[in-house]
Amino acid sequence: MTIAAALLMGLIQVAPAAPQTPEPPTPASIVAGAPRSDWRAIPAADLLVMDLSSEGGRPRRVVIQLVPAPFAAGWTANMRRLAAVRWWDGTAVVRVQDNYVAQWGDPTEKKPLPPGIAPVPESAYVTPLDAIADARPAVSANDFADSKAGQQRRAAASIRGTVTPAAPQGWHERDSYAEWVEIFDGWPIATDKANAWMPHCYGMVGVGRNLSPDTGTGAELYTVIGQAPRHLDRNIAVVGRVIAGIEHLSSLKRGTGDLGFYRTPGERTPIVRVRLASDLPPGDRPAFEMLATDSEPFAAYAAARANRRDAFFNVPAGGVDICNLPVPIRAVKDERSSDR
Amino acid sequence: MTIAAALLMGLIQVAPAAPQTPEPPTPASIVAGAPRSDWRAIPAADLLVMDLSSEGGRPRRVVIQLVPAPFAAGWTANMRRLAAVRWWDGTAVVRVQDNYVAQWGDPTEKKPLPPGIAPVPESAYVTPLDAIADARPAVSANDFADSKAGQQRRAAASIRGTVTPAAPQGWHERDSYAEWVEIFDGWPIATDKANAWMPHCYGMVGVGRNLSPDTGTGAELYTVIGQAPRHLDRNIAVVGRVIAGIEHLSSLKRGTGDLGFYRTPGERTPIVRVRLASDLPPGDRPAFEMLATDSEPFAAYAAARANRRDAFFNVPAGGVDICNLPVPIRAVKDERSSDR
Repeated sequence: MTIAAALLMGLIQVAPAAPQTPEPPTPASIVAGAPRSDWRAIPAADLLVMDLSSEGGRPRRVVIQLVPAPFAAGWTANMRRLAAVRWWDGTAVVRVQDNYVAQWGDPTEKKPLPPGIAPVPESAYVTPLDAIADARPAVSANDFADSKAGQQRRAAASIRGTVTPAAPQGWHERDSYAEWVEIFDGWPIATDKANAWMPHCYGMVGVGRNLSPDTGTGAELYTVIGQAPRHLDRNIAVVGRVIAGIEHLSSLKRGTGDLGFYRTPGERTPIVRVRLASDLPPGDRPAFEMLATDSEPFAAYAAARANRRDAFFNVPAGGVDICNLPVPIRAVKDERSSDR
Repeated sequence: MTIAAALLMGLIQVAPAAPQTPEPPTPASIVAGAPRSDWRAIPAADLLVMDLSSEGGRPRRVVIQLVPAPFAAGWTANMRRLAAVRWWDGTAVVRVQDNYVAQWGDPTEKKPLPPGIAPVPESAYVTPLDAIADARPAVSANDFADSKAGQQRRAAASIRGTVTPAAPQGWHERDSYAEWVEIFDGWPIATDKANAWMPHCYGMVGVGRNLSPDTGTGAELYTVIGQAPRHLDRNIAVVGRVIAGIEHLSSLKRGTGDLGFYRTPGERTPIVRVRLASDLPPGDRPAFEMLATDSEPFAAYAAARANRRDAFFNVPAGGVDICNLPVPIRAVKDERSSDR
């Protein structure tokens, strides 16, 4: 039992509790118990499916969910175009730097881009709070008192207070890199008083670039495979997140060249094809759904991530880093099954 | 140039700047420029050397620096004993869970422990601030005004202010999991008003255990290979950090069983031997030194991590997570060379 039980950390689902000893729920048990009505299908048109070369006969598929507009809209438009013309087919993973990023693109650095790839200005690294307010719950610029988002934010902040009234308040503000962080409409965001941006959490996908004013096109991409490198926030476009198969990137051999680039072509991992899921035949089209982040189960999940009370834990943390609060996402058998 | 230049992120050393265009220093250039007098040799008796089975003829050596007393003293004493009797020889890496931990120990879970392995109480998960004060600069319990450590802390906090006077202050307090975080005598620590503990940053090594009141012996260990799982802080003993070769653990195939345990023995990575460096023959003994964290170069390094101003960056972060401020450590050719 020692190893199997060691480090259980409550990640496995709690067995039905005997009435006399109710086991506090774990984040996983809360998510498993969420009703179907709290899950939202992720549109196939927002999923980028990257098939690496198979290994030992086993496929290696990585699925990336693109950030919604208005975040990084220019770059994601470019990426949709690149997938449509199959630009990434035959490219490769060229760099894996430990505790940092895995990066892919054209190893020759000479492959021409298709027509229609537009440069994006640096101003698009952040999104004005007003622009979010148009499409989503309003986000107040200077305080959160009067807006619906402000009410939501206070409600979210109070989650922690509700669970541990004695603990210090305000974990939403206890972030080293932003004035405020939250999960907003399914995604982590960080803000100052004027703008929002997506933080470089584990699995987030960003756009490689040259020095300013270059902002990258979206043809060269990386994903975070270590401690969140938040110093990149607002300096690079974040365009998506890996929602399946990140282990095919994070477990690759680290490159031994500068910055983790591979020294020889043979070390690279070939990319067979990259497509939007909506362009794949139905039988080969992956489908996912995410837990609605304005739902009661999500609020309970967030509270449990901030304060673990199941058997493994002696001391609840009293807070949670924005990058330790991944939005629950699960695969569904086919697209129709997400409409059940 | 595109890929090679993309994501340079200032990690490469800055070339000597032309006088007319001084390039702001990077964290790496600051460390590279630190004088020899600011480097401290790490005692060989504090290094645990773990040799995994070689792969493709190449050795896979992982080096762990044990935390200093009084942190985790009971567990590290057990680990020294286990290394001395060669207990880990023939054990294996049994679990690799993506964005979480790689864990090793006895796969049979039946190997008897040697005499002299003492249980450690749960109270040792944290270290009273008073206990640190005995051996190190005093740490004030309720405020930092009167102690030497308090002065150091204010000085450290002011680093950020010095570099970016206009930015919000107080990143040492902007941590989701503790009231205060800092680099203390070479190690990251987190504190509340009474105790200090070591945070679960990338590469930190912890002790697997069963449910409370079991605290583990130190025979089963794991290291963090993803976003810092800080909810484990104060719930598990942190006994060291990987200072070399973590890529041999972080790039292993992820286990497909529950919690990332491998399903079959053939998937495990054999551990050939584990020794204290001081018990290895001089010719096989690795040696390392770390940058003194009370030195001027370290202060400049921390300030640069919090506010990158080199060419790649448009917006300095204005802060840094305690787990994004690794203490610079470097290999030296042999033990004597660290005394030059």
